[in-house]
Amino acid sequence: MIYFKLIGSFVFTKDITDLKEVIYKFLNENTKKILTKNGEIGCSINDFKIEKNILTIKFESNQLIRAHEVLIRLKKELSNFTGKKFKIGIRDVLIKYFDIKMESKKSLNIKNLPYVKNIEYGDKCIVILFDTESENKITYSEIEKRIPDRIITLLKNKMNDYGGKNEHWELLWESEDKKFKFKEDPTKVMEKEGWIKRGYNRGQWIYGPQATHLFRTFEKITLKELLEPLGFSEMIFPKLVPWEVWMRSGHAQGVYPEIYYVCPPKTRDPEYWEDVKNIYNITKEIPIDLIENKIDSPIGGMCYAQCPSFWGFLQGETVSIDQLPLKVYDHSGTSHRYESGGIHGIERVDEFHRLELVWLGTRKETLEMAEEIKEKYKNIFENILELKWRTAWVTPWFMAQEGKKGLSDMEGAGTVDYEAITPYNNKWIEFQNLSVNADKYTKGFNVKSQNNKKLWSGCSGIGLERWTAAFISQHGINIENWPDKFKKYFGKLPLGIKTL
Amino acid sequence: MIYFKLIGSFVFTKDITDLKEVIYKFLNENTKKILTKNGEIGCSINDFKIEKNILTIKFESNQLIRAHEVLIRLKKELSNFTGKKFKIGIRDVLIKYFDIKMESKKSLNIKNLPYVKNIEYGDKCIVILFDTESENKITYSEIEKRIPDRIITLLKNKMNDYGGKNEHWELLWESEDKKFKFKEDPTKVMEKEGWIKRGYNRGQWIYGPQATHLFRTFEKITLKELLEPLGFSEMIFPKLVPWEVWMRSGHAQGVYPEIYYVCPPKTRDPEYWEDVKNIYNITKEIPIDLIENKIDSPIGGMCYAQCPSFWGFLQGETVSIDQLPLKVYDHSGTSHRYESGGIHGIERVDEFHRLELVWLGTRKETLEMAEEIKEKYKNIFENILELKWRTAWVTPWFMAQEGKKGLSDMEGAGTVDYEAITPYNNKWIEFQNLSVNADKYTKGFNVKSQNNKKLWSGCSGIGLERWTAAFISQHGINIENWPDKFKKYFGKLPLGIKTL
Ligand SMILES: Nc1ncnc2c1ncn2[C@@H]1O[C@H](COP(=O)(O)OP(=O)(O)OP(=O)(O)O)[C@@H](O)[C@H]1O
Ligand SMILES: Nc1ncnc2c1ncn2[C@@H]1O[C@H](COP(=O)(O)OP(=O)(O)OP(=O)(O)O)[C@@H](O)[C@H]1O
Ligand SMILES: [Mg+2]
Ligand SMILES: [Mg+2]
Ligand SMILES: [Zn+2]
Ligand SMILES: [Zn+2]
Repeated sequence: MIYFKLIGSFVFTKDITDLKEVIYKFLNENTKKILTKNGEIGCSINDFKIEKNILTIKFESNQLIRAHEVLIRLKKELSNFTGKKFKIGIRDVLIKYFDIKMESKKSLNIKNLPYVKNIEYGDKCIVILFDTESENKITYSEIEKRIPDRIITLLKNKMNDYGGKNEHWELLWESEDKKFKFKEDPTKVMEKEGWIKRGYNRGQWIYGPQATHLFRTFEKITLKELLEPLGFSEMIFPKLVPWEVWMRSGHAQGVYPEIYYVCPPKTRDPEYWEDVKNIYNITKEIPIDLIENKIDSPIGGMCYAQCPSFWGFLQGETVSIDQLPLKVYDHSGTSHRYESGGIHGIERVDEFHRLELVWLGTRKETLEMAEEIKEKYKNIFENILELKWRTAWVTPWFMAQEGKKGLSDMEGAGTVDYEAITPYNNKWIEFQNLSVNADKYTKGFNVKSQNNKKLWSGCSGIGLERWTAAFISQHGINIENWPDKFKKYFGKLPLGIKTL
Repeated sequence: MIYFKLIGSFVFTKDITDLKEVIYKFLNENTKKILTKNGEIGCSINDFKIEKNILTIKFESNQLIRAHEVLIRLKKELSNFTGKKFKIGIRDVLIKYFDIKMESKKSLNIKNLPYVKNIEYGDKCIVILFDTESENKITYSEIEKRIPDRIITLLKNKMNDYGGKNEHWELLWESEDKKFKFKEDPTKVMEKEGWIKRGYNRGQWIYGPQATHLFRTFEKITLKELLEPLGFSEMIFPKLVPWEVWMRSGHAQGVYPEIYYVCPPKTRDPEYWEDVKNIYNITKEIPIDLIENKIDSPIGGMCYAQCPSFWGFLQGETVSIDQLPLKVYDHSGTSHRYESGGIHGIERVDEFHRLELVWLGTRKETLEMAEEIKEKYKNIFENILELKWRTAWVTPWFMAQEGKKGLSDMEGAGTVDYEAITPYNNKWIEFQNLSVNADKYTKGFNVKSQNNKKLWSGCSGIGLERWTAAFISQHGINIENWPDKFKKYFGKLPLGIKTL
């Protein structure tokens, strides 16, 4: 249960002392509709007080009909009443006091929230006391924007959050068992053979001709066995992602810890940068502190998820029906994530290469396309890559972040993780995934269909480093031992770069 | 001419008052070698003074043999002398006064330099007075690092700098004149046809299936007509560039105004980012100021030039001879430059797509390979793209930045810009270039060859947006009117994404 207590003052355009009686009468007799929902009274109003042009009221409610919602509706009714009868309007609404008490089995680790003065954990409950005094106080404008409801959603999500990202993991399918002869760490072997070398940044590799050819072979297989047969077209999605994209895609809700942020220079005037250049040229050290003062706040970050940038192409547009389902893919650049430090191989890197599929259509079309793609993937992993792999149903990131509300509306939406075993450490890694995102993107980017049917979309991210890790760790680095169909696609191993 | 005046104090390990006579004698009689170069005396030493364990000397010199250089050599000789004879060493050298006076026809717009207290522009000369007192003072350690020489180089470069980037532009070759039927702005036409749409960031585009297919056709032509015949192998170069790479490649000397800087989070601990998430989820506004405090200083930037990242693969290595000339290319991601604002089309964007060639070998091999590549380019632009184009010899960026010294050592090195006319505005744009970089990269990244021959390298950057701008503006967007050989490579125009 949730309880609300709010004291609010309506500021009228004129003195209403003389209208005390009619206003109190109105409040006592004409507000039942506002205070009631589904025939039940959810809110009480009390302690009326009139001083000059100000009417103060105390609202107490449960979650059936929230006190701040009543405040908004009452303002409307009241100004209607005094406006018509006395030509007096309401100029402002002041929040004098506001608290929310929520039942909660656990206490949350939250110290600060905007507009909130204090969060207290009592006996199986949390009390949120809003700030109604300082410059960060909650005002009627925040009430109108439903800020209190957003705070409630946020706290509810925290209460239901069990910490792990994929709290729901459910095996869907697993391929037949295989015996593995090769038991080495794919990264180490590739490094030893000179297929890859460490880059200068953490989690960054430089790929020699052999590793690059392996990547390109994976892409070719995907092209020939999946993208072409299913009619996907190639596009180029941008790779620098400004905030607006993540706000619309929903990533702004939680992506911060893993982002490589991007800051432009404050100006490109050469004179402005003269001192930095001079200092570098004289000391041969980069004056990082000085540079920090000459760059702007972050405008966004480097590509994290690959598909959000696509949606700018359709934002605000109405897609004609004969185009549906629309199917596109992108592999035009890198993705970057600030992963946890320490030693990972190429299976977890800060800079990776991914082929991303995006499709959209009606709910039915989107779900059908997802099934067709899954079939093609199955053929690739079973018959060409010959992997030991499995699929699992996991909580999609957007559901985990958005809370569980509206799940029924989203039936069929969700994420399938594709996992492969890496025999050297006997672990399963996610090497790609496939999500049906319901109307998450189409709503966020305001994309409509010609016939006004709700549009759904799906996406799937093929991580080339992860395919490599799965493939090499199961089949080894000796091409002789690779699966026949794969060898056909691969052709000749290019010469590497030999150093002494 | 350049004049140096320096007063320096040698701090001995013991009181040398009693040794005054022998030391003065030594200074007067045994220092000729130090003060002389090519039989000419370039420096005088005067005003000897001994107080307890400190010997102070005034040095005055021209650029034949620089005063601070004499200081270093004299320290060695002196401590040799007093060490052997009296077992007294030199503990420290203090810089009491130091100025440099350079002849200069123009006054420079430089206000601050590290270790410098004051820069004064006198009558056809510049006087640099070093700071010898504050915490930013010059010390003997800076003298040892040749900081004064770097300052002189920097000032000399400024004196020779005429502002423009390509001060030397020299036509090498121009193709036959053509008549152009199409006179429209390629960006506007492509936008109208739905081939491209603006991205959310400045100078950023999202490429629909048709434009993407055009890019890929350019790449295919390059692959079939140039890369495969000449034996280039594909590699994947990293796209996030840490400072160290630009320090080694030389870009750290001047690239700052155009960089998109990259800052990682201070930590990826979710709790650390909790407040940012909460504020966003409640206010639906990104708390940029808060984020700014939670990210680290820039670790580098997004890809600017494409080849520096390659060199990590070879850094510190010795390349075996049978590998030379080594030929690789990369087209694995985006390049980003903070270009001047305002309205540019796709010919000048902040996020662009480039295919970069890199080759290395002996000087001879590198120059020969450059010629072969130029021949192939010529064939492509003349017979397949059928462009009106020209080539010009321009000052390579690394020469412009490094000053003109050592040019003779670099004979054959330099940059060729490829330019095409865009009939709609009758301007020439650089659509690609080709540079022979002498030993710039091989030295910066310390790459050796097996037989100890000096290694040279070259690189060439094919800008796909620029090829597109050149091609579409000369041939239009109607495929019927495109050159035949090009059409063969292009095949069918993919369906675009239609919106109402
Ligand atoms: N750090 C990484 N290194 C290499 N590939 C990655 C990395 N992060 C994600 N990918 C690839 O991108 C795909 C989609 O990204 P997604 O956000 O679903 O990964 P994720 O859930 O973060 O993976 P994980 O749980 O392993 O970190 C993954 O299936 C994988 O192929
Ligand atoms: N802003 C840009 N937009 C598109 N392509 C670019 C851009 N900047 C550079 N390129 C491409 O990269 C190639 C090599 O980069 P280079 O640094 O030589 O360009 P540049 O000299 O800065 O060009 P410009 O003088 O036109 O700015 C160019 O020939 C061009 O093809
Ligand atoms: Mg992850
Ligand atoms: Mg430029
Ligand atoms: Zn996606
Ligand atoms: Zn280059």
